[in-house]
Amino acid sequence: MTSENENAFLWPVRIYYEDTDSGGVVYYANYLKYMERARTEWLRAEGFEQDELIAKNNVIFVVRSVQVDYLLPARFNDEIIVSTKRVKKGKASITVEQVVKRNSDVLCVATIKIACLTADNFKPAVMPADIYNKV
Amino acid sequence: MTSENENAFLWPVRIYYEDTDSGGVVYYANYLKYMERARTEWLRAEGFEQDELIAKNNVIFVVRSVQVDYLLPARFNDEIIVSTKRVKKGKASITVEQVVKRNSDVLCVATIKIACLTADNFKPAVMPADIYNKV
Amino acid sequence: MTSENENAFLWPVRIYYEDTDSGGVVYYANYLKYMERARTEWLRAEGFEQDELIAKNNVIFVVRSVQVDYLLPARFNDEIIVSTKRVKKGKASITVEQVVKRNSDVLCVATIKIACLTADNFKPAVMPADIYNKV
Amino acid sequence: MTSENENAFLWPVRIYYEDTDSGGVVYYANYLKYMERARTEWLRAEGFEQDELIAKNNVIFVVRSVQVDYLLPARFNDEIIVSTKRVKKGKASITVEQVVKRNSDVLCVATIKIACLTADNFKPAVMPADIYNKV
Repeated sequence: MTSENENAFLWPVRIYYEDTDSGGVVYYANYLKYMERARTEWLRAEGFEQDELIAKNNVIFVVRSVQVDYLLPARFNDEIIVSTKRVKKGKASITVEQVVKRNSDVLCVATIKIACLTADNFKPAVMPADIYNKV
Repeated sequence: MTSENENAFLWPVRIYYEDTDSGGVVYYANYLKYMERARTEWLRAEGFEQDELIAKNNVIFVVRSVQVDYLLPARFNDEIIVSTKRVKKGKASITVEQVVKRNSDVLCVATIKIACLTADNFKPAVMPADIYNKV
Repeated sequence: MTSENENAFLWPVRIYYEDTDSGGVVYYANYLKYMERARTEWLRAEGFEQDELIAKNNVIFVVRSVQVDYLLPARFNDEIIVSTKRVKKGKASITVEQVVKRNSDVLCVATIKIACLTADNFKPAVMPADIYNKV
Repeated sequence: MTSENENAFLWPVRIYYEDTDSGGVVYYANYLKYMERARTEWLRAEGFEQDELIAKNNVIFVVRSVQVDYLLPARFNDEIIVSTKRVKKGKASITVEQVVKRNSDVLCVATIKIACLTADNFKPAVMPADIYNKV
């Protein structure tokens, strides 16, 4: 995926039956899944595979906090786009803004703080330099 | 479930394999599922069934925003408790605080804003008086 | 849970929004979650915790095959009962029949074969004797 | 996706954290999600959108039975391919074989029977002729 605007990574997601609920719309927790898929693909696009980060660097990224505003619902068969943009960076954590859109409609907007931990015992860890420099 | 402290409704949740991920802990989106289960049971304990609210009152509750802080992870087989407490109330929306604990450990803390909509076309709706008075 | 008929272990499951899809019924894959919850509780009722089996005995149970017939749909707010009954037993595997009911309605019927593996490298393992004798 | 062999439709699926469990592998129920994604895309590739089938033809496809053999586990970050091939066809139902592979490894094999129902009241329905002729 190419970026739409400066610094935003875009990832498309198709909505299937598994994503919806009996209200006829996407279940609210599922947007967090799409956002994680998008962050995974963003790291992959930057050259980082999370399974290798665990195996080689003993680091894992975990979500510390999420703030999500739900504006409009997605529905079965919709094709939505999740954008990911880093808005803050520390030695051991980063904060991203993620926006879910369907065409020009903004469906939800999230701010997500991610911490870098040691993979074996979940202690705060300094991000590997090559990741720190790229994200 | 009886309340632990004033105004808090408590609901237990057992963690199964379906809830965890390969990091060995509960996947972050799943806490939103537990919180919705707890809100559903809280409404039920107050005498309201959401399927009847749709059928008889043409109203549905939807989540407008979530703010979640993840402090400690839950793991397979854990028994956790989700508390739900109303912290704000308007004619067409309420805000609840939900805390997930394992024994005395606080695993995550959320503030969730819920709007009342018409069930057939998702327009803002005034909450039925009997619900408004109870929640 | 007490047993309804000879050898069947019963476990209740409430249907929440997370379980349903936009067809208005429970999504077909989710019945496999309820069946696993029921098997986990069946083992627990027999005195076995799967996390301890991994840590102490280095064994894990995995599903080898499922055959499910879907007869009637469950819906939001339904309370269903999952029964679990062992129908076949070998040194390294067991087969259970699991039936999901809502009151007297049979919603789905499954035959599930489970293998015992070493937890660290997923090789076939003989079931610990105390489990073999109980299940 | 082009077909690999005669009549098989191929659909790729990436494994994310949401798909795995604390056993380190993909949770067994999730393969049914991938199979439904693949069937949805297969219908789409043949020119049929399921939301239009509901709205215009009042028909919906539901799963009547599944038989799945789990042979090898998928893991985080794997890219798997789901193939879909019709093996039986009736006026009101079809049966497909779906195979999940990672490169040349066969991970699981399923036979899935799907019925055509009226969307409004879930009664058996004859498949629309244009679908019947294509699938």
